[in-house]
Amino acid sequence: MTYCVAMLLEAGLVCLADSRTNAGVDHVAIFRKMTVWERPGDRVLVLMTAGNLSLGQAVVNRLNEAVREEPPAGLLTVPSMADAALLAGEAVRAVDRQHRAALRAHHTGFNVSLILAGQIADEPPRVFQVYAAGNFIEATPETPYFQIGETKYGKPILDRVLHAETDLMQAAKLGLISMDSTLRSNISVGLPLDLLIYPRDSLKVGLHRQITEDDAYFTDIRGRWSDGLRNIFSSLPDPAWKV
Amino acid sequence: MTYCVAMLLEAGLVCLADSRTNAGVDHVAIFRKMTVWERPGDRVLVLMTAGNLSLGQAVVNRLNEAVREEPPAGLLTVPSMADAALLAGEAVRAVDRQHRAALRAHHTGFNVSLILAGQIADEPPRVFQVYAAGNFIEATPETPYFQIGETKYGKPILDRVLHAETDLMQAAKLGLISMDSTLRSNISVGLPLDLLIYPRDSLKVGLHRQITEDDAYFTDIRGRWSDGLRNIFSSLPDPAWKV
Repeated sequence: MTYCVAMLLEAGLVCLADSRTNAGVDHVAIFRKMTVWERPGDRVLVLMTAGNLSLGQAVVNRLNEAVREEPPAGLLTVPSMADAALLAGEAVRAVDRQHRAALRAHHTGFNVSLILAGQIADEPPRVFQVYAAGNFIEATPETPYFQIGETKYGKPILDRVLHAETDLMQAAKLGLISMDSTLRSNISVGLPLDLLIYPRDSLKVGLHRQITEDDAYFTDIRGRWSDGLRNIFSSLPDPAWKV
Repeated sequence: MTYCVAMLLEAGLVCLADSRTNAGVDHVAIFRKMTVWERPGDRVLVLMTAGNLSLGQAVVNRLNEAVREEPPAGLLTVPSMADAALLAGEAVRAVDRQHRAALRAHHTGFNVSLILAGQIADEPPRVFQVYAAGNFIEATPETPYFQIGETKYGKPILDRVLHAETDLMQAAKLGLISMDSTLRSNISVGLPLDLLIYPRDSLKVGLHRQITEDDAYFTDIRGRWSDGLRNIFSSLPDPAWKV
């Protein structure tokens, strides 16, 4: 599986993806789930994929075809993030048409989902979640994050802490804490992580960092978070019920 | 949906279940998911059900048929918890046979899972998880808890804190914290809660408490937990990466 989260903040965007895939326990591997297209001064787009790896890669390959034309087209020239989400949805549908019959013959569902985040020119930053049917929804200040993959372990802390006003570094920290809970409880999610921070209106990638087991910051906050949770838990009064 | 958790501790058993069911958002209702059979001095058995409510209730009804015979049989007379789990699995299979064809005709899967916890006479306390096929697994000191229903939101804190040596009141507190994360992130799980605490070798129910929104203890620790999480999160250093 996978865990990816994107946050839509007043200050910009934070995207985080793990990199573990598994096709059975004897086929666990590292694949990046995050693809970034950047045209400094004009746009930054970040795509994260979850579900069947072959389908996610096929969607990225289709989107890259237009990007690699001369002159570039597709995601590098669409005028808005909504148009970019439409392109991503069309790519999903094209992959579905291409593989549907064969997948059905193998009793395999069409299982892919995307998060597309970015900013194009004068538009504000936007975040879309694209479903396997190619339709999509957009994040808003009231619901400023989307998750795909193994979403549940890391959701409670997002629900408790995240607001559209959260600053970029706090949001990055929050994403890593949300990922930590997921890593601890689900072995299908694993390091390294891909973290991208995009400051609003910068129109270039602010930070794109691969976080491995050796990352001093991640190691530090994981330890502090774990100790802190245990400390709060210990500090809660036990029930006084008579048994 | 549902969230139920049972913990197998050196000191005894703690079982916790929510009580919300939903068959679509216009059909949300309160149903108890926990059934208790007690023969003081001889045995205590606790069954929790998740999945399709009609199937869970059908399993409980089947198990109650033998219990209500004169003299009582079934769960009230089997010599071991493993035999009780076999009976529960047979009840699941009987319900499957009874409803399989009709469910298939309505494109509804056979979706039910059980946790059966308890102690019979000289045996130690034991906890089983029974699957929809009627097969089952047993908890051990290395993996001292089982969950059914919406299990993921509340799993990380169990993985961080729970050990077989955790005492009963700490385990009850932990179950409530695990439930709190689930309640906050998934509206298909709701109050009131059914909490049962069973001290090892007592062969009677120690505490069976219904926890509502008015429960002072639960309200207190929910608030403290939420504040504590936010405080630890704030105390973690922000990343010093240059963006």
